[in-house]
Order: sequence, then C-alpha cells, then structure tokens
Amino acid sequence: MSSDHREPSLDVGLLSPVSAGHDESVSDAAILDALVTAEVALVRGLARVGALDPGAAERLSAEYGWTDSGCRGHGLSATDLALAAVDGGNPVIPLVGALRGRGVEPDAIHRGATSQDILDTALMLVAREALGRVIADLDRAARALSAFADEHAGVVTAGRTLTQHAVPTTVGARVAGWVRGIRRAVHRLREARDALPVQLGGAAGTLAATVDEWGTDAAAALPSAFAAELGLMAPDAPWHTERWPVTELGDALVQAVDAVGKVAADVAVLTRPEIGELAEGRGGGSSAMPQKQNPVASALIRSAALRAPQLAATLHLASAFAVEERPDGAWHAEWPTLRELLRLALGSSAQAAALAEGLVVDRAAVARNLALSDGRIVSERLARVLVPRIGKERFAALIGEASTGSLAGALRALPEAADLDVDALLDPAGYTGLAERFVGDATAPDSGRA
Amino acid sequence: MSSDHREPSLDVGLLSPVSAGHDESVSDAAILDALVTAEVALVRGLARVGALDPGAAERLSAEYGWTDSGCRGHGLSATDLALAAVDGGNPVIPLVGALRGRGVEPDAIHRGATSQDILDTALMLVAREALGRVIADLDRAARALSAFADEHAGVVTAGRTLTQHAVPTTVGARVAGWVRGIRRAVHRLREARDALPVQLGGAAGTLAATVDEWGTDAAAALPSAFAAELGLMAPDAPWHTERWPVTELGDALVQAVDAVGKVAADVAVLTRPEIGELAEGRGGGSSAMPQKQNPVASALIRSAALRAPQLAATLHLASAFAVEERPDGAWHAEWPTLRELLRLALGSSAQAAALAEGLVVDRAAVARNLALSDGRIVSERLARVLVPRIGKERFAALIGEASTGSLAGALRALPEAADLDVDALLDPAGYTGLAERFVGDATAPDSGRA
Amino acid sequence: MSSDHREPSLDVGLLSPVSAGHDESVSDAAILDALVTAEVALVRGLARVGALDPGAAERLSAEYGWTDSGCRGHGLSATDLALAAVDGGNPVIPLVGALRGRGVEPDAIHRGATSQDILDTALMLVAREALGRVIADLDRAARALSAFADEHAGVVTAGRTLTQHAVPTTVGARVAGWVRGIRRAVHRLREARDALPVQLGGAAGTLAATVDEWGTDAAAALPSAFAAELGLMAPDAPWHTERWPVTELGDALVQAVDAVGKVAADVAVLTRPEIGELAEGRGGGSSAMPQKQNPVASALIRSAALRAPQLAATLHLASAFAVEERPDGAWHAEWPTLRELLRLALGSSAQAAALAEGLVVDRAAVARNLALSDGRIVSERLARVLVPRIGKERFAALIGEASTGSLAGALRALPEAADLDVDALLDPAGYTGLAERFVGDATAPDSGRA
Amino acid sequence: MSSDHREPSLDVGLLSPVSAGHDESVSDAAILDALVTAEVALVRGLARVGALDPGAAERLSAEYGWTDSGCRGHGLSATDLALAAVDGGNPVIPLVGALRGRGVEPDAIHRGATSQDILDTALMLVAREALGRVIADLDRAARALSAFADEHAGVVTAGRTLTQHAVPTTVGARVAGWVRGIRRAVHRLREARDALPVQLGGAAGTLAATVDEWGTDAAAALPSAFAAELGLMAPDAPWHTERWPVTELGDALVQAVDAVGKVAADVAVLTRPEIGELAEGRGGGSSAMPQKQNPVASALIRSAALRAPQLAATLHLASAFAVEERPDGAWHAEWPTLRELLRLALGSSAQAAALAEGLVVDRAAVARNLALSDGRIVSERLARVLVPRIGKERFAALIGEASTGSLAGALRALPEAADLDVDALLDPAGYTGLAERFVGDATAPDSGRA
Repeated sequence: MSSDHREPSLDVGLLSPVSAGHDESVSDAAILDALVTAEVALVRGLARVGALDPGAAERLSAEYGWTDSGCRGHGLSATDLALAAVDGGNPVIPLVGALRGRGVEPDAIHRGATSQDILDTALMLVAREALGRVIADLDRAARALSAFADEHAGVVTAGRTLTQHAVPTTVGARVAGWVRGIRRAVHRLREARDALPVQLGGAAGTLAATVDEWGTDAAAALPSAFAAELGLMAPDAPWHTERWPVTELGDALVQAVDAVGKVAADVAVLTRPEIGELAEGRGGGSSAMPQKQNPVASALIRSAALRAPQLAATLHLASAFAVEERPDGAWHAEWPTLRELLRLALGSSAQAAALAEGLVVDRAAVARNLALSDGRIVSERLARVLVPRIGKERFAALIGEASTGSLAGALRALPEAADLDVDALLDPAGYTGLAERFVGDATAPDSGRA
Repeated sequence: MSSDHREPSLDVGLLSPVSAGHDESVSDAAILDALVTAEVALVRGLARVGALDPGAAERLSAEYGWTDSGCRGHGLSATDLALAAVDGGNPVIPLVGALRGRGVEPDAIHRGATSQDILDTALMLVAREALGRVIADLDRAARALSAFADEHAGVVTAGRTLTQHAVPTTVGARVAGWVRGIRRAVHRLREARDALPVQLGGAAGTLAATVDEWGTDAAAALPSAFAAELGLMAPDAPWHTERWPVTELGDALVQAVDAVGKVAADVAVLTRPEIGELAEGRGGGSSAMPQKQNPVASALIRSAALRAPQLAATLHLASAFAVEERPDGAWHAEWPTLRELLRLALGSSAQAAALAEGLVVDRAAVARNLALSDGRIVSERLARVLVPRIGKERFAALIGEASTGSLAGALRALPEAADLDVDALLDPAGYTGLAERFVGDATAPDSGRA
Repeated sequence: MSSDHREPSLDVGLLSPVSAGHDESVSDAAILDALVTAEVALVRGLARVGALDPGAAERLSAEYGWTDSGCRGHGLSATDLALAAVDGGNPVIPLVGALRGRGVEPDAIHRGATSQDILDTALMLVAREALGRVIADLDRAARALSAFADEHAGVVTAGRTLTQHAVPTTVGARVAGWVRGIRRAVHRLREARDALPVQLGGAAGTLAATVDEWGTDAAAALPSAFAAELGLMAPDAPWHTERWPVTELGDALVQAVDAVGKVAADVAVLTRPEIGELAEGRGGGSSAMPQKQNPVASALIRSAALRAPQLAATLHLASAFAVEERPDGAWHAEWPTLRELLRLALGSSAQAAALAEGLVVDRAAVARNLALSDGRIVSERLARVLVPRIGKERFAALIGEASTGSLAGALRALPEAADLDVDALLDPAGYTGLAERFVGDATAPDSGRA
Repeated sequence: MSSDHREPSLDVGLLSPVSAGHDESVSDAAILDALVTAEVALVRGLARVGALDPGAAERLSAEYGWTDSGCRGHGLSATDLALAAVDGGNPVIPLVGALRGRGVEPDAIHRGATSQDILDTALMLVAREALGRVIADLDRAARALSAFADEHAGVVTAGRTLTQHAVPTTVGARVAGWVRGIRRAVHRLREARDALPVQLGGAAGTLAATVDEWGTDAAAALPSAFAAELGLMAPDAPWHTERWPVTELGDALVQAVDAVGKVAADVAVLTRPEIGELAEGRGGGSSAMPQKQNPVASALIRSAALRAPQLAATLHLASAFAVEERPDGAWHAEWPTLRELLRLALGSSAQAAALAEGLVVDRAAVARNLALSDGRIVSERLARVLVPRIGKERFAALIGEASTGSLAGALRALPEAADLDVDALLDPAGYTGLAERFVGDATAPDSGRA
C-alpha cells in the first residue's frame, strides 16, 4: 500500500501500546548489538583459552565497540541483515559475511561456531537485559503495593466470589495476595536470569571444529571462557536441541505477566463507576468523551495477559519439535515469539509499576459497597449462630430476599436471638479472620523469596 | 542495552525471516496510512450524505494525499503516534490531535466517531491489502503445483503413513492434495476479503453523535457512504463488540498458513538426503558447512505454521472477552495479534509461491525408495490375493522379515501362486487406484472453487 | 490411587460442570456407535455400487442394529476397545478384529478401507449429531434474547467502554448485538454441518484396494454411496491429510463458544451486586454462604470460552503437521481435541439457552446506574453544544470532578446556555442514536442469515 | 445419538490412546477419592488443633475409608455428583450434601471451608499421585536411554540440521541430549511435587469462619495441620486467587511432555524406512497393511506434545483472569485442563519408558547413511584444511555436485593436498569433537540433578 520498493516493516509499537516505549532492550538494534557481542565474545574466548592471538581479539573488540555490557556503535545495519537473512533463513549468515567483509581479523571470526551458537547466545543476552528491567519494574510494583497493603490493612471490604459479595476481607489482604503473586514471579525470573546459559556446540553440538583445530582441552574450556566474557552461565553441555532454557525462560515471563494481569483484572473491576473502590492514579482519556477516566494501565496489562500464554505455548511446541541437531522450522519459530513475550513482560511490568505507585483507594466507596447487602455479607457467620437456634428454613427466609426491613431489625426482633449482640454479629470488621496477619507476612521486608 | 534514550523498537524482521521483505503492507507506515485514510473517508462519507460541505472533504483529501487506494504522503510520524498512544491506550487519540493540529478543516475531523471506528476500519483496510497479496501468492503456488501435479501425475511413489511405506500413490496425487488445500484456503480468504466490513458506531455502537447532529437519515446512510469511500462492506449494524469479523479473518489466515504448512511439512521430509525425492529449487546455505543445501523455504513456512494457530486463538479469546461496549484489554490484544497473523500469512504464502515454482522431483530417487520394500508396499493387495490361498500364517511369514531372498522369487516358488502373474501383482504402478483421476479433478482449470 | 488393576479413566464430567449432562452425543458410547455405523455403512455402500451382495449388507445391518440414525445395541465394549487401541494407536484396528470375530459376514467388513476412513467419518457423524444440538440450543438462545431485546428496546442504559460509562445505549441494543453474534455463529455452524464429508480413500487416499478388487467405476461411485448411507457429503476427493474439514468445523465451534462467551461476559458484569442490572433467572448456591446467588451459567460458559480457542489452535497445528499420507501424531491429536471442543460447544450453548430464557432485567437498577454520572454520560453531546459557546477549558472544568453541585444546575447557571433546554440536553433517552433501529434489524423474524 | 436418557459422558480413552490405561490416577474415581480425602483431612486437622473432638474425626475417617494414602471405598457416586455439580457449578457443593446426608458426624464436615479449599486441595493430591507416576516413568526412560547412550557412545552418525546432513555426531551424543532434557524435566517435576500446597482460606482467603469459631491460634495452626494430614505443603498464606501453584505445575508437566516429545520426534524420523537407524522395539500394526511396523509410541507421544502446550496456556490465562476472591469462570477452566495435562504427561511418559527400553539401533544403516555424502559430511573440516591451499572457488567446485568420481579420489589427485592423509581427513569418526565426553557427563550415575 505504501510504496513499490519493498521495505521491511518498521514496527514502532503503533499497535502495541502496552510495550511502546518500554521495549528498546528487545529492539532490532539491541538484538544486532547482541549478535555482534556474541561473535566478538567468541573470539575473546578463543584468545582466553589460548587458541587465538589476544591481539586479534583486542583489535576486533575495538572495531566493534566492545564494552562490559556488550558491543555498541559497530555500524552494521539491522535492515540490511534482516533482508539478507531470508535466503539462509537466519541473520547470522549475512552477519558473518558483513563482519568478515570489514577486513578486521576476518579469519578469527565465527571460528568453529554455527549460526545457532551465536543466535541462541545473543537471545540469552537480550533476555538478561530485558529480565533486569522486568525484575526492577516488578520490584517497584511490589514495593508500592506492599506499602499500599500496609496502609489499608484495616480497611474492610467485600470479598467477592463469582462476582457476588461473599464474606468480608480487607483491602490490604487482597493487595497482599497481589504482592505474593508478583514476588513469586520475581523469584522465578531471578532463577531464570541466573541460569541463562551460553550455547556453544558447533553444528551438531559436539564442538568438533574447535577440537579439530585446537584440541580437546581448548574446546572443553571454551564454553566457560565464552560464558565468562558474556557473564552468562556455562552449561554442562551444549543444550542445542534440548530447548528447556528457552521454555523455562518463557514460562517465567508468562508467570510475570499473569501476576500483574491478576492485579489489573482486580483493578479494572474495582474502578468501575458503580463500584469505585480503586482508581488508577492517572486515567486515560477518550477521543470523544471528555468525562472519561479510563483504567488504561489495567487495560493494557490485560491485553498482554490475554496474549502471553499462547506465545509461551509456541515456545513449548518448538521445544517438542526440535528434531535432530537443528529442526526445520521449530527453531525459527522461537525467535520472534520469545522477543514478543519479552516485550509483553517489559511493557506490562512497567505499566504495573506505574499503576501500583499511583493506585488510589476510595474508602467511602469501599464502605458503601460493603454495606450493600445490609449485613448479609456475614451470613456465613449468621448461619453458624442462628441455624441452631431457629432452624434452616427460618434462617433462609430471614436472609432471603423475601425479608423486608433491615436485617439488624429482624435479628433484634427474634426471641431466639435476644441474648446476641446484633451489632457485633453483623459487623464485617469482626469477620476478617487472619486478614491482617496475611498482610504482615506478605509485606514484611524479608518476604521477598516467594 | 543500546541507549539511554527510550526509543520505540524498530522491528525490521531481523528475527522473522519468514516475513522479512514481504510485510510492507502491514508495516507501521501502512497502518498509519490506513488510519489517516479512515479519518478522511469518514469526512468524505459525511459530505456524501450531505452532512458536511464537500469542499471541506476535498480540502482534507488533498491535504492527506487521498487516492483511490488510500492516503499517502501525509507527513505524519508513526513513531510519534506510537509513543503518544500509550497514555490513552490507542493511537487514534493522538492521531486526531495531530490531524486537528494541522489546521486544515479541524472541525470536520472525527465527527461522531470513536477510536474504535477508525482503528477497526483501518485494520480492515490493511487486511484487504494484505489478503490481496496472500491470495495472489497462493494462486501462484496453486498454479505452479497444479502444473507440477499434472507433469508428475504418473510418477508412482511410496505412500507413507506414520512415517512408514504403506501403499503406492503418485507424486501427482500427493501434490494434488496440496493444491486442494491451498485452493480451499484461497476460497476462505476470498470470502473473508469480500466480507471485510467498516466499523462505524460511535462510542456505544448507536451512532448517537451522528444522529444528534445530522439526524437519523444521515446517520443511517453514513455507514454505507463510509464503506463506499473505502471499498469495504457496510454491515447490517455496527459490529462493535461482536468480533466475528476479526475471528473469521483470523481463521481464514491460519487456514492459509496451515495449507502451505502441510506442503512444507511434506517437502521438508522428502528433501531429506536419505529420501531425496524432492528439492527446493534454491536451497539455503550454512554459516559453516559449505556442502549444505537447506530447504529454507520449507523451514520458514513451518516456523509460521507453528506460530499462527496460537495467534488465532488469541483473537478468539479477545472475541469472547469483548465485554460491554468496549472491553478492558481484549480489544487491544487484537491489534498486534492480527497484524502478526497477517505477516505470517504474507510471508509463508510468498515463500510457498517461490517454493512451488522451483520445486524439483528426482524420479530416480522416487523409484529407488518405492523399491525399498521389495514389493511389500503392495502387501495389501498380496494379502487379498494370497491369504485365501495360503492362509494368514504363511502369508505373514512370507511378508515378514523372516523371509529371505526376493519376495518375487518367493511368490514364484509358491505352488498355490503358480497361476498368478507375479510381476503384475508386485507392480506398484498397478496399484494406484484413482490417483490419476484425483489429480485431474484438482488441477482442472475450473477447480478453483474449493 | 484407587486400585491396583489398571482401569481406563471414567470421565463423567466431575470436573467439567459446563458440559456435564449435555455431552452424551460425544460420549465414548456415541463414538463407538459412530465407528460401527461407519463400518456397516461401508458394507452397505459396497452393496449399493454392486460390489457386495446386498444380503450380506442386510445381515450385517441387522447384527449391528443399523437404523436411519446409525447403529445401536451392537453389544461392543468401548472400554475393551480403548485399551486395545493403545497397541496400534487407534481404536479401529481392534474394532475390525471384534467385528470380524463376531462371525457375521466377516469377509465383507472393512474391505478396501483404512482406519482413517472409519475414524474420520465416524467423527463427522458425531459432529453432525452434536452440531444439531448446539444449533438447536443457540436457536433457543437467539429467540429468547430477541424477545428480550424487543421487550427492552426502549430501556436506556449506560454504555460502558473500558469499564467506564461512555454514552447511553439501550438494553435492547446491547442484547441485539448478542443476537447478531449468536446468529452469525449459527450460520457458520450450519455451513459446517452441511459440509461434513465422509472420508474414504484407503491407506494413501487413492482407493487402490477398491479399484483393485471391483474396478474403477465401482470405486469412483463408492464415496457417494457411502455418503448417501450416512447422510454426509461426498467430497471431490478424499481429504485425507488435507485437514480443513476438521479445522473449519473447529473454527465454527469456537466461534459459537465465543458468541455465548460474550453474552456471559456481559451478564457476569451486569449481575454484580453494585451494578445489578441483570440476573440469571436461577442462580447457583454456595457451599458456605447462604445469601449468595451466583451467576453460575455465565461462569460455566466463560470457563468454556477460556478453553475453546486453544483447542481449535491444536486442530490447526495438527492440520499443518499432517505430513504425507498420514502423520506421526498430528492425526491422533485431533480426536480428543475435537471431542472436547464439541463438548464445550454443547455445554455452553445449553447453558446459554437456559440463561437466555431466564434472564431478568432490573429497570430500576439500570436507571440508577445511568444517573450515576449526573448527566456526564452525555458529555459527548454537551461538548458539541457547549465548547463552541464556552471554550474547551471552561467546559472541562464544568464536566470535571472539580465541579460541585448538580451538572444541570451548573448548566442552567451558564449565561451562554440560557437558550438551551437543559433537561432535554441531559436526557440520556435523547441520545441513543439508532439503537432502536438496530434492535429491530436483529430481532426481525428473517434476520437469521447472519 | 445413543439414548434418550441423558447420561454423563463416559470417557474411557477411546479417542486418547496415548493415555488409555495410564490415567487411573486422574480418573473421576480418583478425583472423588481425593475430594473425600480433603474433606476428612480437614476434620482430622480440626481435631489436631483441638477444635474438634478426635473421636468425631476417627469416626468419619472410618466411615470414609481413610488410609495413609487417602480415602477409599466410601461408596459415593462420581456420576451422581457430576450431574449435581452443574447447578452450583462445582462438585463440592453436592459432595458436602452427600457427606452430611450420610449422618455420620454431619456437623463436623466442611467446617469453615469453601468449595475451593476442598477442590484445589484435592487436585493437588491427584497431582501428587500422578506426578509420582510420571517421575517414575521418566526415571525409567532416562535410565534406559543412559544405558543406550553409553552402549552406542562410539557409533558415529550423521548429525542433521534443517533435515540435511551437517557434521558427524554419535548415536550416544544425540541420546545423551535426550537424557539431559528428561532429567531436567524430572528435576522440575520433583520441585513441583515437593511444593504442592494445600489450599485453605475459606471463602475470601481469610479463614474468617475458622477464626470466628475457634479463634486465631487454632485458625493459624489449621493449614499446617491440614497439610500434615495430607502430606502436602502448608503455604505462607492461602494462595486463593494467586494461581501460580497451578501454573507452575502445568509448566513442569508440559516441560516433561516436551522432553519426551523431542525423543519421539527424533525416533519418528530415524525409523523412516529410508533412514532406518532406529526402531521401536515393538511396532504397531495396521488395519489393512500387514507389512507395516509403525512407530506407534512415538506417534502417540507426539500427539501429546502437540496438545499439551495449549492446555498449559489455558492455565496461565485462568491465572491472569482469577479476579477478586474467586473468578467467574477462570477457576472452573482450570480443573479439566489440569486433569488433561496430567493425563498427557502420564500417557506420554509411560509410552516413553516403553519406547526407551525397547529402542533398537541398526548400526549398518547408521553407517550407510553416514557414507551417503561420500565424505562431504566433514566438509567443514575440509574447508578449513583446503581453502587455504586451493582457494574458495576450487573448493566449492570440489565439494559441489559438479564433481564426479569419489571425493577421496579427487582429493588424492590434488597436488596441493599431496601431503595430507586423505583417509584420516575424510573419516567422520575423527570429527566428533567432545561427543564422547558429553555422553559420559549425561549418563554418569550422579548426573540426575538437571
């Protein structure tokens, strides 16, 4: 539609507001940086194990802007590589060509490696950077929500099951549950991040070319050297077509999106105007309706939560179909899927942090809703106390809609209940169980392990 | 990793070789064109029903480069809108601001409309353009494969079930099946394309603002006028939160990817070196192994086929969760998902067309494999003929691995089979049933309806 | 846990209340009936084309309880076949053994057929029966909801977008949208049901064994004869490993679940006690809270809507991976998946019919909620009228939370609005656009085509 | 189809051969046992914390067949409960009625509990039992494959990438990768099993009813007492609508299916008749083709691997949509999904154990295939050695198809290669890198930790 010249798509997030502005760490530029970083790190690793001249490694490092956090300013074009990637099916083939074509230590580049070594490792680097940001944003969200839970630990509210008022709980207890979910997700993300491994095995996962050229000892030492350059883990053996490092990463990411998705689900309900118990600090406007304050952060997070699980499923399918020493499609399916999953985690955790930090409770609305059932919200307690006195049938009539007048009045009029403190019996604040204790457990400073 | 300044992600397909170079029609630029086109078409539609001054519509059309195939060269920035879209949760809000800010007929813009009207309609425009390309590429693929099936209609080959040789079929019959699958998918895509509707309902799907300003008749006529400007269908009523136009589109797209996915699955198997019956005309190289000719098109198509179904599932989830007059996340989940599904259909159909046009059969390999079972590939026929003569047990021994020497020899040595023409009995070419007829049916010029 | 003797699982729906009691048509007993029916129909078809003795077909028909709607009372055990199915990977292999072992016309059974012919055809029979029920229940739901929409066509209610009040709509208009969604789904289900094809191709889809034994003409006529016995369609050619008949069926089923899922999503929100605009006629109780009336039908339908899309995705994956003449796993993945999808459609459509027939509106609650924004629900209209008079800034202050007192009072106090009929301006009933018309279009007796 | 009387579906696995015969631990009977067990354990827990009379707990335990591994022989009917579950939406409501109706300590039953407490806890019990079987079968598979890998550690074979021969590897190295994948999955399953928590929180997760009746201390002690009765973990707080215990379980299960899915994917390819390197010890027959030995275990496992990821995705969706204190559908969606995922893990791990123990290698076929490229399988090495001597162009011609005669002969004829040991250079056995070492690492007795 736009032009005759075939240009690759520019995706700046026009259709993905949840991640727009939060996904630079998974941009094509970032991925290209990581690919170059992996190639240079391999050369540095070879030098470290004595296989290559350290000078060559240094010259390459300088040429491609090696820093402690990867290569920058290397001057390669992601667009050119993207188009050139089609023929061979992956971007590493043209990348190697471009690096060698630069003329700086061309013979040192990509020695003993296969495309998969570079691409898998680069995606682990990208994941590490993205996970760092996701974890930071979830930590922010958990901290803000912990403070919020503490602040509102004593605010009694209607607990709702299947949309209906069930028994009382507290604002703090509900939010403490969110904190637990987020902290568990952070725990999994940290595990995943700390386990991110380099991949280095050559075409069939045997490191044959490396052994052939530099011998068994150098080859055996190389993965650790490579990993040390990159700050990633060295696996027991090349993982190659055993893809659990990818699926475990994906599972942790979707668990993170779930955790904030649950928060957003609750917030979206509780900001409904008829309920009005919560408000996002900063609502979004409308193109036509000036009065609206939409819970935009919640909506965006929920859009991510609706999408992420199916992406993780694709990673699992790719894992199960990772046939032989490199599959005919399953590996290729992982790349954009993992990237999109990282994007969703980045965007939804950033939105969640902002949402958590701005969240506002309307205590009057909480109290008004709590009173809506005229005391029936503690009917579980009433049943325990009254059924033995008046029987099931009369109790049901009392509670049911047939009754007129206030429930308190009806209780006071009951001869069998004459000895009861009706106000205390009906007070929802007296029926919140261990809510306060559960808040304290969740928001204590050392409760972060899960 | 790459910079401190937060830039939206540039996705040029570095990690999506299946669609790189084939997805300009779903690029952010194309989507922005479509959004602008929808806004301008609404003004033109209002003029068409007499609500607005035709001159205003013409001035706006000129300002934003209106052509028969949409607006071009409008000078708006997708990146700016993407970042601005985060606050309100969709890109139409800042778009309307940008259009009005241009100062050309600001009061005519977005009258009576809501973000959803523009975004849903724009995505239908984008889908139409993309579907046109997908259909064209699938037509190319079907034509090439029909010719291929006709050419090899008489080439007998091993039919394989659960990976094992079963009974004979022909190369043509197998490929005719592919053609049927692709033609059916094209049929569904055409149905979907011809049904693509505009969305126009205002905030709650009632066209209240339009009625309020210009009356019932103008409002009732507007959707058709809007649709006429855009060449889309006018629905009976705004579809709004009844999302079947999106899911039916998604289902048609995934069916298309399935159809070429099945082709790629067969090609990937049959190009294995031990089988070698087919070759992609142009194999892809390797970063390290000079001898390799990889079936890259098949692998890329298969990567799309592994991903597309889960994206279509997300569209269905979004449909079922499209609560009230606009949902809190489900609508947002559709946009990037539909785009990615379009991308996969675009890429995989383009790859399939190229694959189909270059496909090569190695008849010697076909014959060699067919002979591999030394005639046992027709054991279904042998059983029918011989079991009545020699009983099940002796037949099983004859066919089983225990037998030594050639099967033909063993048959000739059987007294009970003395009257049989062993060569004819064992000839796979005599046991292909209606294979030839099924090829003809599929490849006849008028067989395109499904 | 339960016993040492390995028994196959008895799944009576203990964990699937949405379908419990509604899924007899997809029970193992029903599937076994269908398998037997397909085997007998094949013999009848062979007799019909003159290949077999009609007497044999009649004797078999009598033995296995052939009726116009399939075989009944055949005395075979689903449990035995299920366990025996493991070795060969499908239940047809032991079924053929059992049928032949019965001793009635053993040589007529399964002639020229392969397991896939019988299993695919049987699943189409099961689908036809199930689709009939789903369609009937959706028709019931659509009729009840049409009447409901007509009855409440004039009841103005808050239209809600992103959970917030947006502009008015009517109860009827919202429900008319549900009707449209359900009718469209019924349209697709009818298309799918009318297209359900027999599968008959032999091991490689060539009908070789049939041709070999009875010649080309008989073989060419057989699929139609087989289809005629079963009341299914005869396809142009065996569909075999082109699996679109399965995926199109799956897509129609999930669209049906989506359609009622959308209804349930709205009902679940609108039955919230703080909103209270709708009630399921018959709410579900709680194990502990006597006051609760849960929207159980909505919850069960929503549970189906959350599950169905991923099942349809599995069918698409199986289609794309249907390699060669029978795949190594993808075909097997279809059976339980299609069955579960049928179950979800059966259960959710039955629940939807009951929900629709019992749905109750609380007009007072509707009115109370509509008034909640003190007129701001028509702020879209107010903006059009007032911004030209008082400017954007003053208008925003007027609408915003900063304002005190009633909006009507504030408007009346505005000198610039002195000429306006404030009551009319603020009346939501005057701002429902074409809502009434859209109801009529949806609920007219002849509106069932989509 | 089968009867007029509505019976719940009997699912004995007729359509699920992968799990038929392996899923008794997730049968309705087993689930009912677990539900009863959870109810009785709650009473026992209450007695343990001093809230109830120990005698009552013992009488109930006796009545319902309490044993160390749960309740048996309680005489309740799963079918009755399944049908009764529809009204309230879950089977616990009628179960409580049935238990109380029995008349044995009716007042002790379900005290302070909600349906979710019982159902969630029961599913954890079922999961524990099922996980035990899955782990045992995967351990069997890993042991058998370790022995297999050791036995064939030195058997050189073609490493294949994108279906094509790449470089050599060994049979042992490939299988050692399988072992690593399975062991990692077992590690995750063990983690998941050891973390399976009871759920006990009452309607809103506060234990209000328990506190109300027996005070804070008893309530606070109850979850641990309940967990102790059942041998499950006591969580820090009720997990309620934080559903990560379910999704982490689901993720571990799908990882297990992936791991054996990868094995099956390789086996399915390598048992192809043209390749023939592996055979399942016991192939499956065909309904029509007597010669066939189908890799049935692989096909069944692959069918599970194609289905499991989408089920895990549903669990994640349910987690993100677990709104408030009990969601309106998402919880219900978990039960049948988790059960089916357990079924797939049970069936595919049992099939994998059998497959692993029967796996056969054909060394002659391995060698024949390895030789297929006439030495080009080591072209990576040849390039390293020869390109410096003869240049890229001549090397490409040498390796390419244009060359005639044997590669060895061509090499010997090269003047520039006169000093090379051509036989050694072309020997694939000399180019397997660290394959042997990687086998040893994987199959060592203490390598089971991941």
